[in-house]
Amino acid sequence: MAVLPMWKCDRDSSMFDNKKEADAYDKMLELGEQFSLLLEKVIPQVDEKAAEEFGLVLARNKELVLQACKGRPEAIAEIFKEKESGNVTKLKAS
Amino acid sequence: MAVLPMWKCDRDSSMFDNKKEADAYDKMLELGEQFSLLLEKVIPQVDEKAAEEFGLVLARNKELVLQACKGRPEAIAEIFKEKESGNVTKLKAS
Repeated sequence: MAVLPMWKCDRDSSMFDNKKEADAYDKMLELGEQFSLLLEKVIPQVDEKAAEEFGLVLARNKELVLQACKGRPEAIAEIFKEKESGNVTKLKAS
Repeated sequence: MAVLPMWKCDRDSSMFDNKKEADAYDKMLELGEQFSLLLEKVIPQVDEKAAEEFGLVLARNKELVLQACKGRPEAIAEIFKEKESGNVTKLKAS
């Protein structure tokens, strides 16, 4: 039987069979972490788990965050809609 | 004596003698508001004033947020540095 290369994201042990996807996922988690750290700096009393979740919401929806910062602030509100409809764009972790 | 056109941002009554600046400031406040609303959606128990401040920190530093979302997550950490050194890039309100 063959042996297949896999890529493990050391932040949360997600496994990928494709390095590009693994890198994108790792970068998304890092972005989420940075947003969470900023939130905890600005609001020290915020709950750590909640801050982590918020960071991930922004990181998973970075395309909408980009649009908002480029002059379409209402793009952020579309994250609500995705969050409410439960299909927050999750990057696939095989 | 002459009368000079001024522009008032109705969100916080800041006055500007230049429409372009007034528009940019208003858009920044709107972006801040959107980020705050998202934060309150994701973390309902967050303090409203603190959420407003956090939204403004992101909005005022949207250039760094853009860089972070475009693949340089550590750009967010530069907001800390600016926040700590107290010179968070405030848009001028005359």
